[in-house]
Amino acid sequence: MGSVGELPKTYKAAIYDQPGKISTKVVDLDMPEPGAGEVLVKLSHSGVCHSDLGIMTNTWKALPHPTQPGQVGGHEGIGKVVKLGPGAENSSVKVGDRVGIKWISAICGSCPACLSGHDGVCFNQKVSGYYTPGTFQQYTVGPANYVTPIPDSLPSDAAAPMLCAGVTVYSALRKSGAKSGEWVVLLGAGGGLGHLATQIASRGMGMRVIGIDHGSKEDIAKESGAEIFIDHTKGNADEEVKKATGGLGAQAVLVLTAANAAYASGMGMLKFGGTLVCVGLPEGDLQPIATAFPQVMVAKAQRIVGVAVGDRREAIETLAMAERGVVKTHFKTIKMDGLTETFEQMHRGELKGRVVLDLE
Amino acid sequence: MGSVGELPKTYKAAIYDQPGKISTKVVDLDMPEPGAGEVLVKLSHSGVCHSDLGIMTNTWKALPHPTQPGQVGGHEGIGKVVKLGPGAENSSVKVGDRVGIKWISAICGSCPACLSGHDGVCFNQKVSGYYTPGTFQQYTVGPANYVTPIPDSLPSDAAAPMLCAGVTVYSALRKSGAKSGEWVVLLGAGGGLGHLATQIASRGMGMRVIGIDHGSKEDIAKESGAEIFIDHTKGNADEEVKKATGGLGAQAVLVLTAANAAYASGMGMLKFGGTLVCVGLPEGDLQPIATAFPQVMVAKAQRIVGVAVGDRREAIETLAMAERGVVKTHFKTIKMDGLTETFEQMHRGELKGRVVLDLE
Amino acid sequence: MGSVGELPKTYKAAIYDQPGKISTKVVDLDMPEPGAGEVLVKLSHSGVCHSDLGIMTNTWKALPHPTQPGQVGGHEGIGKVVKLGPGAENSSVKVGDRVGIKWISAICGSCPACLSGHDGVCFNQKVSGYYTPGTFQQYTVGPANYVTPIPDSLPSDAAAPMLCAGVTVYSALRKSGAKSGEWVVLLGAGGGLGHLATQIASRGMGMRVIGIDHGSKEDIAKESGAEIFIDHTKGNADEEVKKATGGLGAQAVLVLTAANAAYASGMGMLKFGGTLVCVGLPEGDLQPIATAFPQVMVAKAQRIVGVAVGDRREAIETLAMAERGVVKTHFKTIKMDGLTETFEQMHRGELKGRVVLDLE
Amino acid sequence: MGSVGELPKTYKAAIYDQPGKISTKVVDLDMPEPGAGEVLVKLSHSGVCHSDLGIMTNTWKALPHPTQPGQVGGHEGIGKVVKLGPGAENSSVKVGDRVGIKWISAICGSCPACLSGHDGVCFNQKVSGYYTPGTFQQYTVGPANYVTPIPDSLPSDAAAPMLCAGVTVYSALRKSGAKSGEWVVLLGAGGGLGHLATQIASRGMGMRVIGIDHGSKEDIAKESGAEIFIDHTKGNADEEVKKATGGLGAQAVLVLTAANAAYASGMGMLKFGGTLVCVGLPEGDLQPIATAFPQVMVAKAQRIVGVAVGDRREAIETLAMAERGVVKTHFKTIKMDGLTETFEQMHRGELKGRVVLDLE
Repeated sequence: MGSVGELPKTYKAAIYDQPGKISTKVVDLDMPEPGAGEVLVKLSHSGVCHSDLGIMTNTWKALPHPTQPGQVGGHEGIGKVVKLGPGAENSSVKVGDRVGIKWISAICGSCPACLSGHDGVCFNQKVSGYYTPGTFQQYTVGPANYVTPIPDSLPSDAAAPMLCAGVTVYSALRKSGAKSGEWVVLLGAGGGLGHLATQIASRGMGMRVIGIDHGSKEDIAKESGAEIFIDHTKGNADEEVKKATGGLGAQAVLVLTAANAAYASGMGMLKFGGTLVCVGLPEGDLQPIATAFPQVMVAKAQRIVGVAVGDRREAIETLAMAERGVVKTHFKTIKMDGLTETFEQMHRGELKGRVVLDLE
Repeated sequence: MGSVGELPKTYKAAIYDQPGKISTKVVDLDMPEPGAGEVLVKLSHSGVCHSDLGIMTNTWKALPHPTQPGQVGGHEGIGKVVKLGPGAENSSVKVGDRVGIKWISAICGSCPACLSGHDGVCFNQKVSGYYTPGTFQQYTVGPANYVTPIPDSLPSDAAAPMLCAGVTVYSALRKSGAKSGEWVVLLGAGGGLGHLATQIASRGMGMRVIGIDHGSKEDIAKESGAEIFIDHTKGNADEEVKKATGGLGAQAVLVLTAANAAYASGMGMLKFGGTLVCVGLPEGDLQPIATAFPQVMVAKAQRIVGVAVGDRREAIETLAMAERGVVKTHFKTIKMDGLTETFEQMHRGELKGRVVLDLE
Repeated sequence: MGSVGELPKTYKAAIYDQPGKISTKVVDLDMPEPGAGEVLVKLSHSGVCHSDLGIMTNTWKALPHPTQPGQVGGHEGIGKVVKLGPGAENSSVKVGDRVGIKWISAICGSCPACLSGHDGVCFNQKVSGYYTPGTFQQYTVGPANYVTPIPDSLPSDAAAPMLCAGVTVYSALRKSGAKSGEWVVLLGAGGGLGHLATQIASRGMGMRVIGIDHGSKEDIAKESGAEIFIDHTKGNADEEVKKATGGLGAQAVLVLTAANAAYASGMGMLKFGGTLVCVGLPEGDLQPIATAFPQVMVAKAQRIVGVAVGDRREAIETLAMAERGVVKTHFKTIKMDGLTETFEQMHRGELKGRVVLDLE
Repeated sequence: MGSVGELPKTYKAAIYDQPGKISTKVVDLDMPEPGAGEVLVKLSHSGVCHSDLGIMTNTWKALPHPTQPGQVGGHEGIGKVVKLGPGAENSSVKVGDRVGIKWISAICGSCPACLSGHDGVCFNQKVSGYYTPGTFQQYTVGPANYVTPIPDSLPSDAAAPMLCAGVTVYSALRKSGAKSGEWVVLLGAGGGLGHLATQIASRGMGMRVIGIDHGSKEDIAKESGAEIFIDHTKGNADEEVKKATGGLGAQAVLVLTAANAAYASGMGMLKFGGTLVCVGLPEGDLQPIATAFPQVMVAKAQRIVGVAVGDRREAIETLAMAERGVVKTHFKTIKMDGLTETFEQMHRGELKGRVVLDLE
């Protein structure tokens, strides 16, 4: 039988009841049936991410449509498979397996992007928590061959935040082209993305990290593995990077903040042949990278790379690093009825570390 | 003996007698002695390139210092080795070998750039025809282990123009990351760089070429191998590229003109995962690529790559394609005393095809 | 509606009625229903491949189990989608689309091999015509997101043979690491795989081809694009390859025959840094490549690469080359009742070119 | 001035006085003059390597000619530049710089191998200590643009052994294609090459190491960073590797011993898509890798890679890891007159760790 025990008829979910405002409401929803090739997952935990706030409040310009009332948010969900839909038995997933649901929760597998291995830009992708029910709920469905397997010894609450921020920076580091032993600059090294990138780069990939951030982030950046920390509010960060790298600059610079200024400053920190990696998305109107000068890029053989959200293989590799203790994050656990308050704290910039919803 | 026959005491050279103006003068120079590790080359031909005009007239902002009176210009020289300097016998070059002298005429081989295989950005590079005597003369010296061997069956006059424009576009196509069978857009497909790029891409590398240029260049672009030609002065080139590529855009776009506008338009023609390749250098003040938006580059996983001048291996590979007839250029041959007039025609935009100096 | 018109209750199929012998029988089968995520395809053509003979006669040692009576063979099928199974509407495939069914007809998409992009070694792969009903029938089912789209202007009968031999050599050439302009040796250049590899390498990828085969194959190898042909029955092929490549050897050698001797001879034709590509599978007991000497491979920095059957993306890229006329094959068309005779001719080595079944 | 102070007329060197036997003799040699493009180096230390023993005793079959009496051996030399030959001032090296002389002590820079970046297989390479005076002497010459710069804070005695064993395994790990986080098997993990490879792989490159060796080597392998150790004399190493890697096998297997048996066993430990890396050179007649079966390599998409000795860039990167303390080796220091005894101990297999000559 492709299911475990008796499933309830309804379950709890936190919806965006008034999109545009910071407001969530816990409601009862009917149990869904897994479709063809899908599995039903009983979620135990979901991370709460800054992107969820943007979706709820309709303040994220990159999204094409306004969020609708009743949307279930969330895109860092962990739970157990409790039922297989028709055809799902042909996949590697079994009832009882622990799996994750991430930002891109389903791909078509047959568009030109999927065919060329770019599943982060699948033409028919579904985004968890935006026009597809997300992970702020006790049950959800996902494609058997696209949910992310969770390593046995990694607790679900620790795994949740890895599915978004962790995967994103893992993917960006891989695509930076920097090798072990080479210098990478992380702009925003003490932030949500940055402290994970610092850990993965230094402990997981053998890179040498120069962390750049506000002086208040020096401790977290250094604890995370930054060999050198530069306070960008003091003096000339470019010069400091050059000095630390024997006058040459860094092999890669990852922009992990949403500031246009960070992009502009990043190019000047690169070595010949180096790569600027775009990760953080500036808000507001589109502005070009102010220092993307063809003449300089030609003279120094430099590159700029945009990194789409990581794919499923990268998610698995990130989780494997988390399982080994290479990367971990600070988080506190709340219940579903504390979600609105968490978003309010997030909006006011008062949150330290990540928040994980306990859905049980 | 490391030399052939008796060498004259003096020889003819064309110098820039009044840098800043269009003026050259043929003078007698003393025969140089090849230094340690160098060879003396008796040049038979030299291409005349638009960069030489910029150096002579001091109008090329990228150069750090003004050109000095007495400078011998030229950086597309072909000739025969007539004498080996001390230590040069340890290289593969022998007296009688036909070799080329290109833009970068010497590298140090030991700076960080050389060590990492980026000899185009050698920290101690010498540039032929700019603060190093160039190829508008009958004799010159070059490092035994850096002169470019010329294939036996390729005539010297046909080889000369390959050493600069040919190598540059060859290198840019390789670094574009486009594979055989994939679409590349060449902005400026009918120009000096463009018509060579079109030939190499289509006939040499199996890529599918969309040539974009002024309508008057349609014939040369198509004869050179462009499968599709788009007149950028008519209608919407972006839309045309999309239509030609099944709605997806091109795998790579090479900017082979010096127009900032070409850079700005190029990004919109790219496929997800595609690469904009910077080759042509806009004159005037530095301006960023106006469409280098991090948000779009992230969403589409796109890249921008600056390509430094090709290295010696790429020069050899380009010449091998020329030897096989994959790429050729139209040129006329003049004598040294016609050089000033040629630069005047070049300045007035009246030159069709390339000009090669016959130095014998 | 996810289907077109009225479908018949039964249809014609050619089965292996007596596996172990050369015998097929045309029977009526019940119309299948596409399962979850599957499409029903009305096949118009199927290629007949030498592997089918091996499966039917149980002479191919690489297969783990004997073929069962009633097996429908074939793995180069082309047809139109006539019905979508549940969930298949989420893929890019629509009723009326022309699609192909190839050797690997389905993958799980979630095993370690699939996750790492090696779908040719999927742990749960289905092989068309071996323990999964193949393409010697008028209807079959396949996964919506794994059938291969067929380019509009490529006729179905011409497309069929590309799905196996074409894809295999395309993939091998890509994995050889040879670039355009470099020499590749094709061992068995005039054979079923070889003449396709010669066309794709020379016309599609810009490589320079040295074809090696029995002298009787010289014409087909040269017509297919081999720049040099070597009759391996005369003189010393190694020496000939060296001579043709300036004393260096070839960048890659593809073994496209099933002879252990070809493997042994291939290593000696390689340049330093070159790659031997394993494609043809010797029959009989396993024997090591007789010249895979660590000392020589170290001294010359050489590689040996095993190439699994091409994946879906490679199938699409191969078909795109076929659509452009870069690669084509000679074939004759037969009806289903001529299949047994065709296999007999194949067994006697009397077939010239490929055979394609017309299933309509 | 291109020199420091007054140089003596003669200096001490240890020569092989009776090649074929284990015997060295300390003699006085005339001070050499650096040639064109060369530097004169006052050596302070030289490592003593097992290859030196093979060269002295003429027991290494890979070498084309017998060693001649009077040969100065050694290929792991460190010292200071004391004089520049003519033309050497164009390189980055200055009098007073500390530099290293390694196995390949000079390359031509202009043969096809050098041009393609394979300087380990330069057609005109010089080998230090074999037909070129080596590093068992107080002074030697080397090419200004090929000696290896030594990082300031790395002591010369600790640097010496890195120039051969360290570089070799560094290069092999890079060419294995294994990424950080992936499993590599090191056959001979506790040996001279192996314990360095274990340190570099685990601490420098973020790989996960399975060390395989005789049980007596378990401690050194684990101290060096092996996550798992397998005693190959007990039970089935293949099975142990499979078990440790979730049933899949390792991404790469490096053969760091000279045993044909190690090669044969290595293939069975590989994952699909994995790579066997040839490093150790079996003595005696050439034998193929006994498990290099085309059928298996095709079915599993596996590769075998021969890794030539590392190049200068890899030497610099290895030394940078040593400077950071990522990799270190145990060594004892002796004087020149103890060299013969050291070789005798080496021959009897009594040496623990490396021996470094103090030449001052």
